[in-house]
Amino acid sequence: MSADEWGFADTSFTVNAEGAITVTGHRYPGLSGEVLPNLLPWFRTVVGIDFAIENEERSGYPPPVDEPKDAPAFVAAVRKFLEPEQITTRAEVRLRHGHGHTVSEINALKTTGFPRVPDYVVYPADETQVMGLVDAAIETDVVLMPYGGGTNVTEALRCLPWEERAIVSVDMSRMSRIEWIDPVNRMAKIQAGAPGRLIQKQLAEHGLTMGHEPDSVELSTLGGWIATNASGMKKNQYGNIEDILLDVTVISAAGKLERSQVVPRESIGLDPKTWMIGSEGTLGIVTSAVVKLFPLPEEQRYGSIIFKTFEEGLAFMYDLAQEEKLPASVRLVDNLQFQFGQALKPAAKGAKKLKSKAERWLVTGPLGFDPNKMVAVTLVFEGARADVEQQEKRVYELAKNHGGRKGGAENGKRGYMLTFGIAYIRDFVLRHHILGESFETSVPWSQAQELIERVKRRIYEAHDERKLPGRPFVSCRVTQLYETGCCIYFYMAFYSKGVSDPVGDYHEIEAEARKEVIAAGGSISHHHGVGKLRLPFVRDIMSPAMVAWRESMKAALDPQGIFAAQRPLADEHVPALTG
Amino acid sequence: MSADEWGFADTSFTVNAEGAITVTGHRYPGLSGEVLPNLLPWFRTVVGIDFAIENEERSGYPPPVDEPKDAPAFVAAVRKFLEPEQITTRAEVRLRHGHGHTVSEINALKTTGFPRVPDYVVYPADETQVMGLVDAAIETDVVLMPYGGGTNVTEALRCLPWEERAIVSVDMSRMSRIEWIDPVNRMAKIQAGAPGRLIQKQLAEHGLTMGHEPDSVELSTLGGWIATNASGMKKNQYGNIEDILLDVTVISAAGKLERSQVVPRESIGLDPKTWMIGSEGTLGIVTSAVVKLFPLPEEQRYGSIIFKTFEEGLAFMYDLAQEEKLPASVRLVDNLQFQFGQALKPAAKGAKKLKSKAERWLVTGPLGFDPNKMVAVTLVFEGARADVEQQEKRVYELAKNHGGRKGGAENGKRGYMLTFGIAYIRDFVLRHHILGESFETSVPWSQAQELIERVKRRIYEAHDERKLPGRPFVSCRVTQLYETGCCIYFYMAFYSKGVSDPVGDYHEIEAEARKEVIAAGGSISHHHGVGKLRLPFVRDIMSPAMVAWRESMKAALDPQGIFAAQRPLADEHVPALTG
Repeated sequence: MSADEWGFADTSFTVNAEGAITVTGHRYPGLSGEVLPNLLPWFRTVVGIDFAIENEERSGYPPPVDEPKDAPAFVAAVRKFLEPEQITTRAEVRLRHGHGHTVSEINALKTTGFPRVPDYVVYPADETQVMGLVDAAIETDVVLMPYGGGTNVTEALRCLPWEERAIVSVDMSRMSRIEWIDPVNRMAKIQAGAPGRLIQKQLAEHGLTMGHEPDSVELSTLGGWIATNASGMKKNQYGNIEDILLDVTVISAAGKLERSQVVPRESIGLDPKTWMIGSEGTLGIVTSAVVKLFPLPEEQRYGSIIFKTFEEGLAFMYDLAQEEKLPASVRLVDNLQFQFGQALKPAAKGAKKLKSKAERWLVTGPLGFDPNKMVAVTLVFEGARADVEQQEKRVYELAKNHGGRKGGAENGKRGYMLTFGIAYIRDFVLRHHILGESFETSVPWSQAQELIERVKRRIYEAHDERKLPGRPFVSCRVTQLYETGCCIYFYMAFYSKGVSDPVGDYHEIEAEARKEVIAAGGSISHHHGVGKLRLPFVRDIMSPAMVAWRESMKAALDPQGIFAAQRPLADEHVPALTG
Repeated sequence: MSADEWGFADTSFTVNAEGAITVTGHRYPGLSGEVLPNLLPWFRTVVGIDFAIENEERSGYPPPVDEPKDAPAFVAAVRKFLEPEQITTRAEVRLRHGHGHTVSEINALKTTGFPRVPDYVVYPADETQVMGLVDAAIETDVVLMPYGGGTNVTEALRCLPWEERAIVSVDMSRMSRIEWIDPVNRMAKIQAGAPGRLIQKQLAEHGLTMGHEPDSVELSTLGGWIATNASGMKKNQYGNIEDILLDVTVISAAGKLERSQVVPRESIGLDPKTWMIGSEGTLGIVTSAVVKLFPLPEEQRYGSIIFKTFEEGLAFMYDLAQEEKLPASVRLVDNLQFQFGQALKPAAKGAKKLKSKAERWLVTGPLGFDPNKMVAVTLVFEGARADVEQQEKRVYELAKNHGGRKGGAENGKRGYMLTFGIAYIRDFVLRHHILGESFETSVPWSQAQELIERVKRRIYEAHDERKLPGRPFVSCRVTQLYETGCCIYFYMAFYSKGVSDPVGDYHEIEAEARKEVIAAGGSISHHHGVGKLRLPFVRDIMSPAMVAWRESMKAALDPQGIFAAQRPLADEHVPALTG
């Protein structure tokens, strides 16, 4: 894993001797090992700055890390059941456990560091050890913060600087076993620290899948998915985490929360199991969960469609959402993101180059698609072969009614797979003074277009007000369809060289955008969660009685507040971290 | 509405001058107005008693009702905003609001009455009045119990006799308006007191449906569905209530719980909206909800399949559950319930009679179906015509692989529709000393057969141990399919003339059956809920910390306990009502 950037250390966007961008490693076909000749020129055009490529910012990683706050009573208590190597105060380890992947976090990681990081990191190996940790924390008054994949973009892992108690990060990576698989009843019990790639691999050996594929699936964990109320890219086929979760075991400050049975669905009055969804580390430590499984699909096909305008693409998405059965994944990217996809293409060669050139001529010439307006939909179909075929037919027919043109399976696959590779680009552009990050929302269909326009406009205005250099990059895609609305995923970036407080500007602009989202009827978050970054907005959407209850139900389980990942909303300190 | 029996007063099973059973009214086609010549002989065979039909138990309704506990301060407070006719102490009204439809409740209603019924019944007309009621209840220390359709079978509405405060039933029937319909985003905001039949009718005028059809849909209300975590018969197509609910407004003891926006799906940390599902009147009064809508299906078709044995039928159900898309409703009845359906058929005439006779000869003769073993599946298909056709094809092919034979659409429709009419039979048989009721569970597929056998065996044993007359009637159907398991719905009945405490025996046997259900891996309830009847079993399936948290999260919202529909589980008095 990279210490100061996203993902695996073998993969990185770099500049080659000819001044073109290349991608290291072999992990992501179509990207890894390729030269991307169009990407750098495109970046320059988009941010409106002809920036020099040699001006790469050097990472100041590792930043300074304060000495850990001593908690001798806690250490003495846990050393009774933890091996020495299961507890550490190593600076780099503590550092890694004190952040996720927001712009300000990654920037701090490479520059100033954080006002506070965990004082200890512990690695429990089983449920009994987690119980021991919680008992010790209560007895010796330290704070516990569960750690899964560390991929959040909500400042969920940031430590509150004013916390007077020692903070212990509970790294769940040693609890990553699949405890059992029940293929008849299509369930598996999986430990909470299991990352998606491990779950996928092991279940596939049995011909099964959870079907849950968030963008972070390689790194994020089952426990994290539950805690953040995650959504997978293929939710149309397999559901979101709340649809997949059948049971959950949690070690809370009040003891073990568990059930003696797993059933498909039930009505048992107040149901604490469901309360753990979205708990963001504030209620306890998820140790394992029972999830629903699906057979691996007989057939998987990718597809893509191009439309002349975003409006046409969105109208197609709406009509498609009225269908009973949707492709596993359907995503609509706006023109800027479509261009991004083009810019990310390696140089084509030979016959492929000719074919691509001919298609391009046809589309942008006689067919009248404007390269600066056209958008694309990427599709993943999964299921029985006959169903997939029938579904494809319907989808392409519907697309035709909206002026859409089939763009081929390869483009669709590329679009879907880029999700994983693209996460690395942020760190590349950051090295070149471009701050960029994503944020997302969900909104009823009728408000989608207006929300997008308002958010884009507001970001342009805010960029202008601050007299930031060049142009902001703001782009969106519609990534999830529901009967009642959709999820909209934004990217925002701007060039920041010479700006005095670029991270402060970034977060101010993002907060402005978020206000605009909420004013336009959008949610605080579709699947990232609130963490510390968006927690204050909860007050904007919930009545005071609801906010108060939210906090008192947590206090009922954890009166001492040892799971202090979030500060109560009533607290003056909220929000004090970002910017 | 009937005062002392299920449903509408126009519908009742009675005995005609010839000693055959007939059904009054015109409400249920295929049943209402029909003579059912085979039903009485079949009842006699099944319970093993050749009971005389003239021995009809006369209803002692209305039973004695105690004077209401006076709450002058509450009355003075609410009279500031309620009209005189919005508050009553009329004995019959109080009586109706103090029970649901369990055997013991209906028996008490016709005999001894209840140790305690609500002291007042109020009829708020809007949200402000509900808020006024809650404020008044807090100020003057009375108990509030929300009342929807009064159809529960969990003793949810029973009043705790030892309650020292006045009990006020809050009847939501005047809050039954659809506030708005948004056909573009497929949502509607509906007041909580709206009964299913009203919602269906009004939405249908706009070509829309909620798709939620619990057995009680004619009478039960939106607020009740949320409070009991209800399941609809067509959940395969439209989802259960948790899938349909988008937002909910609740007047709690701590104030109004509401949100400023409705979005398709979100991740906002702890989410109080979801906590209201299954709250069973303990957290506050649901005043309205926003629900998902669906277009009325282009096509609706019924179907049925017969199998030689229950095992074959269950294997078919399991295989069908592995399909991606299921018919809106699929239900498998066991042999006894299949016979029941046959016994409920009016006498066939003319050509129909001949056809029916020929089919019967073919099936039970050359085809080898044993009338004492065969079972049936009823089907409802809904959707686009082409989809329905394709689905039918697949379902019948699958059935063929399990030795199933198509039984025709009419039988399927009859089977589905009987659900509504059959609810009236319980009151008829009760008049003839047969105590009967349903209970349900959900269970993983691999345990379904064993659970059914164990429950049936245990009921036979318990019936025997108590030396009750004749034979117990115990029958089941599989009513809902999930990837991971199914819902099993049992009927249990026995003849009780001459038995000293038949209701006590009934509830003892039911409790024995429930223990067997749980021991076999079944849930406490799939959709009825726990109410007061099954609340104690919660301790059997949840860890002590989970049970304690469940109660403290309620206390966090309602420290004074004005929503005292359920006694805390720690209380010695649990369970003290039934038997």
